[in-house]
Amino acid sequence: MKVCSDRLQVRTRGKGTYEFSDELQSIVAKHQVRTGLVTAFVRHTSCSILLMENAAPAARRDLERFFDQLVPEAGNYEHDDEGPDDMPAHIRMALTRTSETIPVADGELQLGTWQGIFLFEHRRASHTRHIELTIIGE
Amino acid sequence: MKVCSDRLQVRTRGKGTYEFSDELQSIVAKHQVRTGLVTAFVRHTSCSILLMENAAPAARRDLERFFDQLVPEAGNYEHDDEGPDDMPAHIRMALTRTSETIPVADGELQLGTWQGIFLFEHRRASHTRHIELTIIGE
Amino acid sequence: MKVCSDRLQVRTRGKGTYEFSDELQSIVAKHQVRTGLVTAFVRHTSCSILLMENAAPAARRDLERFFDQLVPEAGNYEHDDEGPDDMPAHIRMALTRTSETIPVADGELQLGTWQGIFLFEHRRASHTRHIELTIIGE
Repeated sequence: MKVCSDRLQVRTRGKGTYEFSDELQSIVAKHQVRTGLVTAFVRHTSCSILLMENAAPAARRDLERFFDQLVPEAGNYEHDDEGPDDMPAHIRMALTRTSETIPVADGELQLGTWQGIFLFEHRRASHTRHIELTIIGE
Repeated sequence: MKVCSDRLQVRTRGKGTYEFSDELQSIVAKHQVRTGLVTAFVRHTSCSILLMENAAPAARRDLERFFDQLVPEAGNYEHDDEGPDDMPAHIRMALTRTSETIPVADGELQLGTWQGIFLFEHRRASHTRHIELTIIGE
Repeated sequence: MKVCSDRLQVRTRGKGTYEFSDELQSIVAKHQVRTGLVTAFVRHTSCSILLMENAAPAARRDLERFFDQLVPEAGNYEHDDEGPDDMPAHIRMALTRTSETIPVADGELQLGTWQGIFLFEHRRASHTRHIELTIIGE
């Protein structure tokens, strides 16, 4: 049994979903863990991590539209230090996830056929998002 | 310390919540981990895993009605390849959880008095849902 | 590699967010795990655990208002055994998280600059909330 720490960055160019399944798989392979778990944890409160359908871009557009409507930027927020997309970003983060934990077997992420792992960016500006990875297994 | 992989299936018959706490406890007991964590991860993007109140069926019916109203099938979705329940299923998944991690002590899941673990099915048709289990501990 | 179990309690005084980042850091330090993961799991279905912005109290007030409006207590719920805040509490829990998993490096929680870990209480009455902690690492 061992524990490995690593990290990756996702560069975002505005609101939307950015897949990093391949990057995550490469890092897991590098650490040579055959059986275990990898946890991806994003160190921010205005973006999320999410497992989502990765074959149909239309599904991700619908997801993004849904969150735009459920948590509108035109809301009446007390906290708007960084503009109208500031508070909605925190709420959309709270409604989704800060980390995902994925099983590893035979050195491979055990994602389903249609699953990919995404950074869900909730801010309008470009950002470099930092994701901590922890792999535990043998 | 050891890591154990296993899996279970939940057969669903339409939208709703399906408890699998007892099956999960049996598998944890089989692997003889006394202290640690079990992660249940569902390999699909149109159903969820959720810890929920397991004593009152009315609470689960209210939960299901809330999601039916919050993410209506009669929405104006771009992605509807598999019918009107296709895109709402992905959104309801995003709003809940793809995995749950539960502590184990003395070989028992450390669920609270009213907690059960459920497969939350968002599709109308019957499905066999695949859940990967990873148990880490000693 | 080792696994450590511990627990902490959060005493709540009505609906709102209660930070316990410092208490969690102290317990992680006590167990002398340098590299690994800590999972905080709440044994209840009417409150949540959530990573959230911890610098601006206004951001937390906006978050709480959003959930009050999205899941109103004045809803038409079948399950209301414990009053009008009973069923909304379960739904708000389902929309947020029962556990959070945070990486540990150099013995420190790897939280981002603006991240804190909170108990999100959804009930009006005061409660003592029980959180199970599991630390895995070396």
